[in-house]
Amino acid sequence: MLGQMMNMELTVNSLIDHAARYHGDAEIVSIGTDGNPSRSDWATVSERSRQLASALRTAGYVQGDRCATICWNNVGHLECYLGISGGGMVCHTINPRLFPEQLVYVINNAQDKVIFFDKTFLTIVSNIRDRLETVEKFVLMSEPDEEIAAQFPGLLFYEEFLQRGTPNANWPEIAENQASSLCYTSGTTGNPKGVLYSHRSTVLHALVAAQPDALNLSARDVVMPVVPMFHVNAWGVPYITAMVGAKLVLPGPGLDGQSLVKLIDSESVTIALGVPTIWQGLLSALDELGSSAQSLKRTVIGGSACPPSMMSEFRGKYGVEVVHAWGMTETSPIGTVNALLSKHNTLSEEGRNKIRESQGRPPYGVQLKIVGEDGHQLPEDGIAQGNLRIRGHWVVADYFGVEPNQTLEEDGWFETGDVASINDDGFMTIRDRSKDIIKSGGEWISTVELEGIAMGHSAINEAAVVAASHDKWDERPILLAVKIPDANITEEELLAHYQGKVAKWQIPDRAIFVEGLPRNATGKVLKNKLRSEYGEVLVSKPAS
Amino acid sequence: MLGQMMNMELTVNSLIDHAARYHGDAEIVSIGTDGNPSRSDWATVSERSRQLASALRTAGYVQGDRCATICWNNVGHLECYLGISGGGMVCHTINPRLFPEQLVYVINNAQDKVIFFDKTFLTIVSNIRDRLETVEKFVLMSEPDEEIAAQFPGLLFYEEFLQRGTPNANWPEIAENQASSLCYTSGTTGNPKGVLYSHRSTVLHALVAAQPDALNLSARDVVMPVVPMFHVNAWGVPYITAMVGAKLVLPGPGLDGQSLVKLIDSESVTIALGVPTIWQGLLSALDELGSSAQSLKRTVIGGSACPPSMMSEFRGKYGVEVVHAWGMTETSPIGTVNALLSKHNTLSEEGRNKIRESQGRPPYGVQLKIVGEDGHQLPEDGIAQGNLRIRGHWVVADYFGVEPNQTLEEDGWFETGDVASINDDGFMTIRDRSKDIIKSGGEWISTVELEGIAMGHSAINEAAVVAASHDKWDERPILLAVKIPDANITEEELLAHYQGKVAKWQIPDRAIFVEGLPRNATGKVLKNKLRSEYGEVLVSKPAS
Ligand SMILES: Nc1ncnc2c1ncn2[C@@H]1O[C@H](COP(=O)(O)OP(=O)(O)OP(=O)(O)O)[C@@H](O)[C@H]1O
Ligand SMILES: Nc1ncnc2c1ncn2[C@@H]1O[C@H](COP(=O)(O)OP(=O)(O)OP(=O)(O)O)[C@@H](O)[C@H]1O
Ligand SMILES: [Mg+2]
Ligand SMILES: [Mg+2]
Repeated sequence: MLGQMMNMELTVNSLIDHAARYHGDAEIVSIGTDGNPSRSDWATVSERSRQLASALRTAGYVQGDRCATICWNNVGHLECYLGISGGGMVCHTINPRLFPEQLVYVINNAQDKVIFFDKTFLTIVSNIRDRLETVEKFVLMSEPDEEIAAQFPGLLFYEEFLQRGTPNANWPEIAENQASSLCYTSGTTGNPKGVLYSHRSTVLHALVAAQPDALNLSARDVVMPVVPMFHVNAWGVPYITAMVGAKLVLPGPGLDGQSLVKLIDSESVTIALGVPTIWQGLLSALDELGSSAQSLKRTVIGGSACPPSMMSEFRGKYGVEVVHAWGMTETSPIGTVNALLSKHNTLSEEGRNKIRESQGRPPYGVQLKIVGEDGHQLPEDGIAQGNLRIRGHWVVADYFGVEPNQTLEEDGWFETGDVASINDDGFMTIRDRSKDIIKSGGEWISTVELEGIAMGHSAINEAAVVAASHDKWDERPILLAVKIPDANITEEELLAHYQGKVAKWQIPDRAIFVEGLPRNATGKVLKNKLRSEYGEVLVSKPAS
Repeated sequence: MLGQMMNMELTVNSLIDHAARYHGDAEIVSIGTDGNPSRSDWATVSERSRQLASALRTAGYVQGDRCATICWNNVGHLECYLGISGGGMVCHTINPRLFPEQLVYVINNAQDKVIFFDKTFLTIVSNIRDRLETVEKFVLMSEPDEEIAAQFPGLLFYEEFLQRGTPNANWPEIAENQASSLCYTSGTTGNPKGVLYSHRSTVLHALVAAQPDALNLSARDVVMPVVPMFHVNAWGVPYITAMVGAKLVLPGPGLDGQSLVKLIDSESVTIALGVPTIWQGLLSALDELGSSAQSLKRTVIGGSACPPSMMSEFRGKYGVEVVHAWGMTETSPIGTVNALLSKHNTLSEEGRNKIRESQGRPPYGVQLKIVGEDGHQLPEDGIAQGNLRIRGHWVVADYFGVEPNQTLEEDGWFETGDVASINDDGFMTIRDRSKDIIKSGGEWISTVELEGIAMGHSAINEAAVVAASHDKWDERPILLAVKIPDANITEEELLAHYQGKVAKWQIPDRAIFVEGLPRNATGKVLKNKLRSEYGEVLVSKPAS
């Protein structure tokens, strides 16, 4: 027996329609590639994204066609998000920081037909253009510019391209299981893999992400996604803010601490979202500028483990709540969010902070488990650690462009590549990537924990722990650390800092000071690079 | 091109599974029919509801079978909710306050096969038993009791019936469009009409209801639904609290103010939901008991218009936020919730209160419009008033058991039977039911507004305004008012209270003091009764 309720589709266009009608004058503040701010609102973004969908249709594109973007977080990018998906095409957001070979790979793999890109990326696009097999149109996000046009034969200009469409044109009918957007993983552990989101998965993800125990977004929030719109759809923020009608602040290319602080203060940002490295810069800038980030209530931190010292600085010094979250491109991305339970009220502040350090618990809609090497489920007692698996409404089923039924495990779950423990309340702690964890004399050592301790030292800015080969123990941890400018610290002092914080046998064998850490396109440390450079430092050299 | 995300169904069992795993020890406090509290938790409720589903299966029931409940808000009722729907059967919640004829009508109309009922309703069920055409099993919500069994041949007892099932049995596979539950309208304007919810509509409604700008529920909330579980699924609270893992306080039969105040204080309730008449009693009791309702942060008020005076008393005297909401059985029920926008920050407190008095704006997932008699859409300028129509994911498409395609209007929208205005931000104000609005000399007069003013007078407890026939003006408003005990007020004084608050021609022609107002099963005033009793008081009597 079927229910007798209205059948409607969960689509991206219904999100923008809601924002346009009920929050039409809520602002979208956007920093352009030239560093200048502009102001729009949801009504205008709706009108222009409908026009974009119509322009694409006029240009001959049909539902399912991939249209790519290489843009900063700005209002033009937002219009592309909504116009492309709303029009039934697939919005493929590309990370401009990928290496040129990776860029060529993902564009050809996705079979993109159009690329919308910001001026900043003109040279990048120009340089790879000849190797792109399917792209028919290159659209620069700007007013027409003859000088640029002369350098790039056939180049189209966004404002001109828009004119081919009807403002406020009707959306097409879209079924909720149709693809809405495509994003590739960060390429930390290999070639980026494509994840093809559906309208339904995007809307369900947004419905959950807005909840009090997730990102907790209302129409009274001013939301600044620092996490790039080319990285897992800026964690869904464009969709979620449309759904709840929040004001959106898009910081454009200026992701340095000072620019962000100024924007937070001038636009009264209440919640900002980004990866830990970004917040490191922000915290220094707050100090330098003497800002107290008055309006800021929460930062959501994910993408890499948030060092405990960062949480206490935000909370203790600025009264800013830190919400630690974990996710992946493959999970839209929200997998867990750290929101305390009632029973944690009875803990000491220290006890609560310990819980806040974990990556949190899954919201309704996703489930987690950890398994051993043989695929057997492990106990969720906060101690056992194993390979983390996930399933849920917004979790990948098949990677884009690979054989079907190759992506999931036999049990139908997705294996994350992360090693984690889960406690009996379901709070999950990432111990490591399975490729990064250190196996020393049969025992596992979490590099994430060792890095967090190093970053808690006042002289240390960045830290990475990797495995180095060892004659006796097979692998031993070594620490690569970047000092804060002008800091004075010796290897011995830094290693002494671990005393009493972890078991003796977990303390790194060496601390090596370096100028910087190699990072990939989303700011994650490339540990394979570090391993190939430093992996042999502990091995006794043969007498030469 | 389809997205490549996991395909999972949005089902009621996935809600209880989430609660059991991630919030297993969050408490369910329940007041029994004997007035005594009991304590359970989500893990136990999950275990027992799975057992109930299994017992129903063992007894031969199959997916789609209607199983009814006639129960208070208590943990047994919660187990029925989840066990019946989770097992694929349809949970039909029946309002025990319906007249016997209405009870017989809805049970036969629904073709219920089983009825689970509380001891309180033994006589009611016993009395109508012979007229029930489809019911095979009567299950009393209690341990076996020989004395009762002797009086009611064939009676089953819940705790015994449960034993026929396996605790923690597996749920069956359920498709999200299957029916999950059935509820009839309150019968304010005619015979109750059945609305058949689906698993999908129930889950989507819960996802939206939990959001910050709707009920704003988190795992740290203690939620007390005073609105009955036999009235639109207690506004979805059982599902929403399972989804977010809140503590649930179920007040059982004691809905008087004093019982509620004691429960709020002893269980640290943070949010309570109910109709205005309930809160009237609560406010008096707070005063009498000298409680400040310390833990209470919000009350959600709907079902009838919330008098402005009630809002200011909650907010001003107790610091309790009042969230005014509008909905119907046909809309699951959330249609609008009043949550302010950023721009309202710049208003005076008085200006904000004015906005809070309206029924609020629709969340993502539903849309509203107002139309004139000819079905043409009216402007949304806060002034024009017309017939309110709604559509959305959790809005009825066909009433249960009536011919298909008879329920919606030609445009595919559902006509609510309410008359409303909508302002440009989408805030909707209910002016009246279309059957209740007064048409005086061609002008419309809102009875809701006039009632709110009367209830703002310190001597008045309850008020209803209805149309009385009038020789010249066709219809004129008259006020029926119930004084608070021992209050002294004359008709003239009460009418004078309207001066300056509404236009002169809107002031009622008479104020008549009555002992009480006739109300229906959900506590709504039966205006048709009042009209037939008082409708002729203004007509000049023929000289006899
Ligand atoms: N809060 C967090 N704490 C620790 N690690 C995190 C956190 N959030 C995300 N991560 C890491 O980021 C990964 C997901 O990142 P993303 O999808 O951007 O690509 P990637 O895994 O870095 O790249 P690739 O899959 O191409 O190697 C997770 O699997 C996890 O290792
Ligand atoms: N906040 C509110 N303010 C004013 N009226 C409200 C509010 N909330 C609900 N209502 C009224 O309640 C109605 C829905 O009530 P419900 O579904 O319980 O049955 P009913 O309409 O009273 O009964 P029936 O449809 O059988 O006559 C709405 O149509 C509206 O008239
Ligand atoms: Mg990965
Ligand atoms: Mg009705």
